[in-house]
Formats: sequence, C-alpha cells, structure tokens
Amino acid sequence: MRTLIENGWVLTMDEALHEYQRGHIVIEDDVIVYVGAPKEHERIDVRIDAKGTLVMPGMVNTHAHMGMVPFRSLADDVPDRLRRFLFPLEQECMNESLAYLATKYAALEMLQSGITTCTDMYFFMDQIALACEECGIRALLGETIIQQETCETKTAQEALALGEHFIETWKQSRLITPIIAPHATNTNDAAIFNAAMEIAVRHDTMLTTHAAEMDYEMTYFQDTYHMTPIEWLDQIHCLNEHILLAHCIHVSEDDCSLMKRRNVSVAHCPVSNMKAGKGIAPIRDMERYGIPVGFGTDGASSGNTLDLFASMHIFALAQKTKYHDRALYPAKQIVHLATLGGAKALRLDHAIGSLEIGKKADIIVIDCESPSMFPLHDPYSALVYGASAHDVRDVFVDGVHVVNNRMSRTRLCDVRDELEAEMQGFYAAAQRILDQM
Amino acid sequence: MRTLIENGWVLTMDEALHEYQRGHIVIEDDVIVYVGAPKEHERIDVRIDAKGTLVMPGMVNTHAHMGMVPFRSLADDVPDRLRRFLFPLEQECMNESLAYLATKYAALEMLQSGITTCTDMYFFMDQIALACEECGIRALLGETIIQQETCETKTAQEALALGEHFIETWKQSRLITPIIAPHATNTNDAAIFNAAMEIAVRHDTMLTTHAAEMDYEMTYFQDTYHMTPIEWLDQIHCLNEHILLAHCIHVSEDDCSLMKRRNVSVAHCPVSNMKAGKGIAPIRDMERYGIPVGFGTDGASSGNTLDLFASMHIFALAQKTKYHDRALYPAKQIVHLATLGGAKALRLDHAIGSLEIGKKADIIVIDCESPSMFPLHDPYSALVYGASAHDVRDVFVDGVHVVNNRMSRTRLCDVRDELEAEMQGFYAAAQRILDQM
Repeated sequence: MRTLIENGWVLTMDEALHEYQRGHIVIEDDVIVYVGAPKEHERIDVRIDAKGTLVMPGMVNTHAHMGMVPFRSLADDVPDRLRRFLFPLEQECMNESLAYLATKYAALEMLQSGITTCTDMYFFMDQIALACEECGIRALLGETIIQQETCETKTAQEALALGEHFIETWKQSRLITPIIAPHATNTNDAAIFNAAMEIAVRHDTMLTTHAAEMDYEMTYFQDTYHMTPIEWLDQIHCLNEHILLAHCIHVSEDDCSLMKRRNVSVAHCPVSNMKAGKGIAPIRDMERYGIPVGFGTDGASSGNTLDLFASMHIFALAQKTKYHDRALYPAKQIVHLATLGGAKALRLDHAIGSLEIGKKADIIVIDCESPSMFPLHDPYSALVYGASAHDVRDVFVDGVHVVNNRMSRTRLCDVRDELEAEMQGFYAAAQRILDQM
Repeated sequence: MRTLIENGWVLTMDEALHEYQRGHIVIEDDVIVYVGAPKEHERIDVRIDAKGTLVMPGMVNTHAHMGMVPFRSLADDVPDRLRRFLFPLEQECMNESLAYLATKYAALEMLQSGITTCTDMYFFMDQIALACEECGIRALLGETIIQQETCETKTAQEALALGEHFIETWKQSRLITPIIAPHATNTNDAAIFNAAMEIAVRHDTMLTTHAAEMDYEMTYFQDTYHMTPIEWLDQIHCLNEHILLAHCIHVSEDDCSLMKRRNVSVAHCPVSNMKAGKGIAPIRDMERYGIPVGFGTDGASSGNTLDLFASMHIFALAQKTKYHDRALYPAKQIVHLATLGGAKALRLDHAIGSLEIGKKADIIVIDCESPSMFPLHDPYSALVYGASAHDVRDVFVDGVHVVNNRMSRTRLCDVRDELEAEMQGFYAAAQRILDQM
C-alpha cells in the first residue's frame, strides 16, 4: 500500500529543518519512503491532496495521564488539589472500565489534535494499552508505582509486579512501548525506586517519574537529606539514560549539570505547571546544558486541553517572559520541541519525530483556513501562535490514516456517550468530597 | 422583531452571577427583554435552539489595532520590533484601503470568536469605522496621535485635528463610540496629551493610550522626571475617569493607589505582553485597589490571535504563576473580566457586559462539542481552559444575528481574498526591511 501526500507545505523538522513549499511524501505501509520536491512516483494507491495545508511530523506528548479525563474542570482552583481531592476521588471511583473509556476518549482527543505519540502513567495499564491500540495512537505506557493504597493495588510491591508483568505482556506490540512509572520522588522510597529501575534496565526500557514539581517535595528533600530531589535520585543510582523526569520546575544549575552528565531527559508541562501556580521550568537553561526536552500535556485534570498547540503557545510566552527576552525561542525551535525534541526525550528519534526516509509514517496535515492563521508569513509562527487543535485535518500513525478530514476512525462522540454513562457514580462522589472539604 | 434563545445554559455574568441551566432569553430589536427560567412568551418571531450550549454576554476587547492584521506572524522574535520593524513598515505600506480591509478581516475574526465590542486605536479611522459598521461589531475607535510622521499624518497636531473631526463625525453612530488615542506616554509630550485630553473632555468620551509597557519607557521617565509614567500622567492632569490605560505592566503599589484615586481603568493584554517578554502585569494588585480591568487582544502583530479565549487561558496561568497561588482567579472571575469587567473598564456597563433586561442584546452561543470541553463539570472552567474561538456558534450584536452557525454575514474568506490582493507590495517591503536589519 503506497500513499502520496501532495501539494502541501512540508515542514520536515529534520535536523536541517528542510522545507518543501509544494512537497511530496510517499508512505509505503508504515514507513516514509520519499520526502522532497514533486516528482513522478510508481504504484501510488492513494493520493491525498494537501493543497493549502502544512504537513509535518505528528506531535510527541512526553507526559500524560489519559485515564484522568473524567476529572477535567473539577475543582481546578482547590489548594493542594492532588492530595485533598484527586487522590481520594481516584481511589474511590477509578476502575478498569472507566480507565479504559477515559483513555480511549483521551487518545482520540489527542489524535484529532495532531499528537501521534503519547507517554502515559496510570493504572489498569492493560486496559490503557488496549484503548491506545484500538484508537491507533503510538504510546509509551507505564504502571504507576506509589507507596499508598490506590484504586488498583494495596502496596507498591504489588504495583511493581503488575508493572513488570505489563512490560512482558506488551513488549512485542507494534504501537505500545511498555515502560515503568514510579509516581514521584516524594511518594516512593529508595528501595521502590531501585526496584523500578531494575525492571527498566532488565527490559531495556524507560522509567518516568514526577520530579522537582511540588513545593512540599522540595522542602521535604531539603529538610530530610539536605539535597534536591535530582541529587537524591542520583544518590540512589536512579539518574541515568533510562529516566524521563516530568516537570523539573525547581531545578538549579547544578541539577541541570548533573542531569546532563547522567543523560537524563525531561518532560516539560508548561500548561499544567502554570495552572497550578507552581512556576515556569528553566527550560532555556536545561537546553543550554544539552538536556533533551519534550512537551507534555499532563492529564486533562491538570492541563485541561490534551493538545500541544496550547503547550507550544504557552511555552513561548512563559520562557520569553521568564527570561525577559522576546528573541528567545523563535517559533521554529518550539515546533522542534513538539516533534523531534519530544522524540529525542523519549529515545525514539531513530523512528519518529521528523519526516525522513525510513522513519515511521507519523504525519499530520494542518489546515490553514482558521482566521488566526492568515497571513502565513511564517508557518512556524502560525503553528505556535495562531493554530489550534481544530486545525488538524488528517493524521497518520504508523502509516494508518487514523484521522481523515477531522474525523477519527473510532468516533469520539460514541466514546463520549459511553464514558458519560460510566461516570454517573463519579459525579456524585466528586460532589461529596468537595462538600466535605 | 422578537427572538427567543432557548434551552441553553445561560451564564448571565450579572453582579450576582445568575445562571439558568435551561434558560430563556428574549431579544426585542436591539434590547434584552427577558432573561430567566423557561416560560411562555408572546409574539416570538424567531426561535434559536441553544440546547447543549453555553449562552453568555459577548466578550469585550479593551485594546486592539485591527488594521495590523497584515503584520501577523512577521518578524515575531525581532528585538525592539516596534521601532526597528513595525513603525518603518507601517509608515511605508499602510494606507486607507489596506487599513479598511484589514479591519474588516479583524472585525469578522473577532465576531466569529465571540467578541462583540472592540476598542481600537489606529489610523484612517473613518475607514476603520466603516469597516466595523459593515461587519456589525460594536467599537470604541480612536485616532492615534503620535509625535512622528506616520502613514497618515506629518505631525501630531494634524492627527489631533483629524481625531476631533472623527469624533464629531461618528458621535451619533449606533455601534461606534469615537474616542481619542494618544499613542503612548513616551511618544507624546505634555502639550499633546493635554490637547488630546481636552478633546476627550469636550466630547465627554474616553482617551486611551499605551502606558507603563516598555522597559525603555520606564527608564526614560525615571531618568528624565524621577517618576513613573503613571505619576507623570497625573502631573500633567491626564489621569482621570476619561482615561483607559493599555498594558500597565510596570506599575507599583503607589501607581495602583493613584490610579484608583483618579478613577482610571486598565486594558490588560496578557498574550502580547508575554509574547514580547515584557512581563506579567500585577492585575491581582490592581483589582485589590478596585481598578476596573478588562482584557485586550492587542493587534494581530503582537498577540496573533484576536480572541479572548486565549487571553482568558493565558491570564489564568500567568496570574497564578506570578503570585504562586493555584487558588487565585477562579475561572468564574476570569469570565467576568472578559465580559462585565471589560464593559466597566470602557464605562459601558450600563449597556453591555451582562445578560440583563434592558441591556443591549450582545449575546454569544458557545457550542460544547469540542473534545476539550467534556466533562462539563464547571462551565466557567470549560470556557477558560477548554474552549477556543472555534467553539463560538452564534453571535448577536445590538440584536443583529451577525454570526449564524459559525458563519459571519459578511463572508470572511471573501474579505481575506481582497486583503491578500491588496497586500502584494506589503510582502515585498517587509522582506526588504528585514533584510536590511
């Protein structure tokens, strides 16, 4: 099966940022076999006219909790929301079928907004993986390990066993890369982190965790160990090329230097970090040290929108403001972070993140008809400052045309109806917990 | 002519924030004659089914430069962009017909994104006013007065005369409120400001100006007068209830106190301020002093999107981050700023800004079908964090149904084609100026 995408303005996002104002891309099965100027091709089965659009690699989400869609717009502004509201509600109400339906919804929402790869940590991971497979999104998925009772397990040991079993079950999957996900530096001790890292190393996969995110986390490590969470992770031998650190809002120059030496990568979540008033991560500094950084939407409860257009826009404004420098992060560099940058952070840049011959056909087509995308002096600026999830017209993942003219193969409205039906007990429990606060 | 909007979730945004989960609104000609629970009404000519939507007052944009659409996505990241790039290009290329078409485009873009009132300062104001009238947007429009040669005038005196003539011409208009707009505190001397204020007072209208926005402006006032731009405005007797100050990024507590005593209002432009790396205005502090604040999109060259959904979202994140407080600015309060808050800043809250009997029928209907608007636990949160310009389904201004099922009466794509044809010389000049930089 060979597909030709023609007439679009192709932004390859490769290292040299090649562009073709009227480019051709040929997909053969799951792989890109041609990117470049128009020419004659043999045996084209399907032709996609991309006239008037931008064609680029699918966006890479390095941090999410897809199962948390039911929590979106609930108690947004409650102080210490995670511990006072989200944990109790999740423990009471989250279950296999809700996690499955919520993930399906989130996966479709992401696909329709141009995300082709998503990293996720949550519970009931077999269900999450099934949901992702069915929707056709590429995903790195890890069981959450946390030293408290959860909706799924009584102990962290139980979760570790589940997590390893999940890796063994899914490691041959076409779209799913199973990983492991100890929750956070302050919610697991060294023994649990070490056990999780052993699993990651044994299966040669990644470990992701929340780090340097919370004020109380920083205070805890300072008071208890006189060190930062990053230094603590290093001390317990968990800072290495397997680790993907989510958030890293509160990192010092010394932390950055250490992270670079240990070959760590970072999932930056600008929207959720700022919505919670936590701060603006020093991404400019991390990049100066050469640390690979990608964007994460975080869960729908934290960042609300599951798209990277909002992340790109808010990232630009936040970094320029933090460093008081309008010239910082030109739009081109921000689109890089959302694509090849994210792929590098996930150690998947050999396969995805740019439009290059031999890479997987993870491709998105962006319509430029929205009023805010005219004039199109600079396509990167239009993507960062003018575009939104609504502008994504077509999406290919692994060569499969999963979103066609804005409609996903699995209909999102059907999934929403099922999810809403499943959520009846959830609404009541949420209200009761809020009333008790 | 009587129109009933029925079955929508009505957010009145009145002082008591009344809501009707299945509300009725009746419009008679240009005025709201009923808001409340469903009941029988006499003589309904048109029924609009708003099932599954949010119905709210049109949003109020307190600061823009509609004519600047052609500059969007041009040289976004150039240091000192205003003086090095925008001024020269504008002086060379802006003219009556370009300003007219650009404003028409901007007005339609705003209407389609739910803005029903816009404040604008630019050149060729008769053309701007005509464009606004034709599109059906309510607008406060002021001739820009600046002590340098512009695309329209050689001197500020000439601009003052044009500005007053514009006020006299348009003061009886149904949709247009003519005002006067000295450009900025650092681009006009006291004599010009005084002359402009005399015009505002003589015609009992508003004066708007950029203030406390630029680093070099702050330095100039400190070095020259040992005072802030706000203190300088007060010293020259221009700080009073006629003035609407745009930006106010760099204001002290003393400035806030003075602004409150002088009954000043503020147009806050979160997107453009941050995109330029200028900073986050201390809006929480201004509001604590009781200063009326509304949102401004700024021009498309500065803020890129001409919608207040982006402003609401970014405002929330920015203020919560600036003050390190997730509980600050619950979504409800932010929707207030975009509606009644903006109307108060423009001294128009007797007529617009909320859905109340006797007020003008400036009403928008927001579709909730976007993936990021589910679940709808909290409609205000969905508006601030999940919605976008694309979700606006219907718009009424002054009782006229100007956007019907996402289509404006004047077709935006036709205006775009005309504008693009008019812009050919503009593209070339922009490139030449950039190459010379």
